[in-house]
Amino acid sequence: MSIAFLGPRGTNSEDAALLYGGRDAEFVAFSSIPALTSAVETGLADVAILPIENSIEGPVSTTLDLLIHETGLKICHEVVVPIRHVLVTTPGTKLDDIRTVISHPQALGQCRRFLERFLPNAEQVGWLSTAGAVREVAEGDDPSRAAIGPVRAHELYGGQVLARDIQDIRSNLTRFVALARNDAEPTGDDKTMIGLTVKENVPGILFRVIAPFAEHGIQMTSIESRPTKGWLGDYVFLIGFEGHRSEEKVAKVLSALTEPAAELKVFGSFPRYPVEQLRDLVSSPALL
Amino acid sequence: MSIAFLGPRGTNSEDAALLYGGRDAEFVAFSSIPALTSAVETGLADVAILPIENSIEGPVSTTLDLLIHETGLKICHEVVVPIRHVLVTTPGTKLDDIRTVISHPQALGQCRRFLERFLPNAEQVGWLSTAGAVREVAEGDDPSRAAIGPVRAHELYGGQVLARDIQDIRSNLTRFVALARNDAEPTGDDKTMIGLTVKENVPGILFRVIAPFAEHGIQMTSIESRPTKGWLGDYVFLIGFEGHRSEEKVAKVLSALTEPAAELKVFGSFPRYPVEQLRDLVSSPALL
Repeated sequence: MSIAFLGPRGTNSEDAALLYGGRDAEFVAFSSIPALTSAVETGLADVAILPIENSIEGPVSTTLDLLIHETGLKICHEVVVPIRHVLVTTPGTKLDDIRTVISHPQALGQCRRFLERFLPNAEQVGWLSTAGAVREVAEGDDPSRAAIGPVRAHELYGGQVLARDIQDIRSNLTRFVALARNDAEPTGDDKTMIGLTVKENVPGILFRVIAPFAEHGIQMTSIESRPTKGWLGDYVFLIGFEGHRSEEKVAKVLSALTEPAAELKVFGSFPRYPVEQLRDLVSSPALL
Repeated sequence: MSIAFLGPRGTNSEDAALLYGGRDAEFVAFSSIPALTSAVETGLADVAILPIENSIEGPVSTTLDLLIHETGLKICHEVVVPIRHVLVTTPGTKLDDIRTVISHPQALGQCRRFLERFLPNAEQVGWLSTAGAVREVAEGDDPSRAAIGPVRAHELYGGQVLARDIQDIRSNLTRFVALARNDAEPTGDDKTMIGLTVKENVPGILFRVIAPFAEHGIQMTSIESRPTKGWLGDYVFLIGFEGHRSEEKVAKVLSALTEPAAELKVFGSFPRYPVEQLRDLVSSPALL
């Protein structure tokens, strides 16, 4: 099995791909999220791993918009990866030597408190990826620059880890989905994700979308609205819920939704990732 | 009245500030969205103008998260600004001379089709702001570089407009909100925005949040979920709806929401912007 992930190597996306595929799978790095779905559609890979949601930053719009507007691929799996950042420098560098910190703007934001406390005067410079920033510093010889990135990037590219677990919040988790030509068979503990537009913006229309879930006792796990890219204020609603589309009560909900919905797209049913097992990991200093 | 907006000058945020305050107001540019709310809280400005939603890219997470977690300021107004991009070069430059196009990554994305058709081989380089990119090109003397940005940046910084209205989608609109110490008095055509967390993630909890709106015939205009920044899958729901918090039926809805809600924050009531008046503008080639 070949798995497409968002490169370069050393990012959290590679961690997610490894977690999904195991060490024996073949991994192919691509440079953008849209390239990942195209890779599966054109046969360059069997499965694509895409980030869909982070516990601090929220939904990954690019992935949601691909599911809505561009791809017919289905979600066949989800995995959740804890985001842990390290500060990488050239060997022998000390905190006082650092004048510039480079990383992806999101990672700089996730380590704001650490930077304010220990590097208040360092200039923060945005980089295209965390792994690229670590590589830039690790393979260079400039002690005035440090990079923030995942420990895996340090394993690949070297450098010195000056500080670890520098993210502000320990429960920083990213959910990834695996996309393939088909979704997954039922396992008894599944989730389904759908997208829909409503027929008209009238009072109560969203009520008619949500009522069937309550009526059939189905737990909604997420609701997002994304612009249709048409008129401001027209939305596509993305709803995640527990259950597999092959279950009778899920089928009843999907059938009831055809009344308020103008368009309805099932993104797939897939095994629910037992995210609760990460509670210990992210709260235990011994493991961090 | 002094109005804080997201600088540098020449951005769409300045357009929004002008639209809100008129030419006689005093305008102060700040370099980040969080600085804008702090400016009002500390008395550096009376009102802050923040982008909250774009018709293509969706919600502006930084603004939503500030409303949820950081500021007690209220929304007192909204304005909607059409996003229109021009391609700026040094004087006399032709399409064939351009090797690099610089702009904010979002603007590059919004002009993807134009770039594919007319500059397929030009390298795209991300810049901190569209206005900054226009200034860089207009005040430089490198004919191999072009910038994408708003026409107002060209008016301020010069350069040559080689192409105009190069955005893929004409109905590209950004909604801005004005934040101040107090929200607005009722006008008869108002909107209200609230944020809430739910008591527990049980089936039907969102149903109990939305039901009161349907029951009282109140039109919801938007629903977003943002992470609580706690556990993955715990959300703050942001709901926009028609009506002023001083109206009886709105008060009834807010009262009913105290049952499913763990926390409820009213971000403010404010006059609804008549966005429908922009339909003609964005669909009329004569005006573009």
